[in-house]
Amino acid sequence: MRNMIVASTSTIHGSGYLQYLLEDLLTVFKEENITDLLFIPFARPGGISHDAYTQKVHQVLQPHGISVTGLHTVEDKEDALLQATAIFTGGGNTFQLVKALHDIELMASLRKVIFNGTFYMGTSAGSNICGLNMRTTNDMPIVEPVTFKTTGALGYNINPHYLDPIKGSTHMGETREQRIKEFHFYNAIPVIGLREGSYIRVKNDQEILHGPHTARVFLKDQEPLEVKTGYNFAQLV
Amino acid sequence: MRNMIVASTSTIHGSGYLQYLLEDLLTVFKEENITDLLFIPFARPGGISHDAYTQKVHQVLQPHGISVTGLHTVEDKEDALLQATAIFTGGGNTFQLVKALHDIELMASLRKVIFNGTFYMGTSAGSNICGLNMRTTNDMPIVEPVTFKTTGALGYNINPHYLDPIKGSTHMGETREQRIKEFHFYNAIPVIGLREGSYIRVKNDQEILHGPHTARVFLKDQEPLEVKTGYNFAQLV
Repeated sequence: MRNMIVASTSTIHGSGYLQYLLEDLLTVFKEENITDLLFIPFARPGGISHDAYTQKVHQVLQPHGISVTGLHTVEDKEDALLQATAIFTGGGNTFQLVKALHDIELMASLRKVIFNGTFYMGTSAGSNICGLNMRTTNDMPIVEPVTFKTTGALGYNINPHYLDPIKGSTHMGETREQRIKEFHFYNAIPVIGLREGSYIRVKNDQEILHGPHTARVFLKDQEPLEVKTGYNFAQLV
Repeated sequence: MRNMIVASTSTIHGSGYLQYLLEDLLTVFKEENITDLLFIPFARPGGISHDAYTQKVHQVLQPHGISVTGLHTVEDKEDALLQATAIFTGGGNTFQLVKALHDIELMASLRKVIFNGTFYMGTSAGSNICGLNMRTTNDMPIVEPVTFKTTGALGYNINPHYLDPIKGSTHMGETREQRIKEFHFYNAIPVIGLREGSYIRVKNDQEILHGPHTARVFLKDQEPLEVKTGYNFAQLV
């Protein structure tokens, strides 16, 4: 029994923090009677403080009657996860987030509460940790986690902020598709390239693509697929 | 006593493998009486075989009288490093390269021979391992090395394929400069953003920028500097 929103990004170009997602999110909060959200700020985008990051979420959700608590303010963090009705992990640097969660030994608890049905939302790095490992993050390895393993709440990996090759680019760095192909040289796990504005709504055994874009599905030794809104990723595993 | 070429890339847009660097490289080979090159193919760009990657280097250098041996073909790899007069590590995936070098316990030997004056050339991932650690690579963490530590042949880190922000981009992923700023939130090591076409020529205590571009120098808690061809990076540490 899982109940999740796994989003490519928190923010789309030209729009405020979480705004593109807000209507869908509030609908889910209403359906699920969610009024309290435990926020995991450890990915720290731009190195901002845990307080400042939590405040950013609070400013968006508090006017809609949602109370936001930062996990960093709680003494017994494992208990806070176990007691929460809803958890949101924000984006930033995936290496930093995964290091922090392993250092305080919360990755297993997070997996447990997700499978027990606690509502979980992730954006970007917070979505990377829904996969089997963080080997398809786009982030720079600025810190060194003890392991790249993540929650395995999904049976595949996410590549958030999925980016199509830029036409006419003269830069010799690998495209995103080339990087994921190299991942599949060493790994057999499916990878979902989730474009900014897309999210996966997980409810029990359904894992449905939402948002205006198609998603790109990468399977080892196969040509990538483009799948439309409404596609159920659960069929991949 | 070090003798190195640390290049941003093997290939610039519109030009063949190593072509932009070839004239300078052959001049150095002549000056240093280098006729044999030990090639480290472990970064495996695009997952190609070690043989195919070594062949690619052979095709460029053999016509100029340089004999190329792939390290993968040698039984006693540590001895091969110790006996080599010149070593070249090609680009590809830095996580894969660093994992391979640590798995067969060659990182320390590589450091040793570089400081003993064996000529070393790196491109891209092969340049990342010249720094103190691989925390400023652009690559996807497709495999998990036992540690991110590298040779420390340079007293700073390289960011190869350095890319300026793309004007008018609507993509919400971090720019390269933002990523390096986040690195400096957790690390104090200087970082050299080396644009494609640039290389650092290290000879004893001189570490000089070559090529047509300026380089961008990132120091913790300071505004980045743009430095010109001829700049000596040794003054940074």
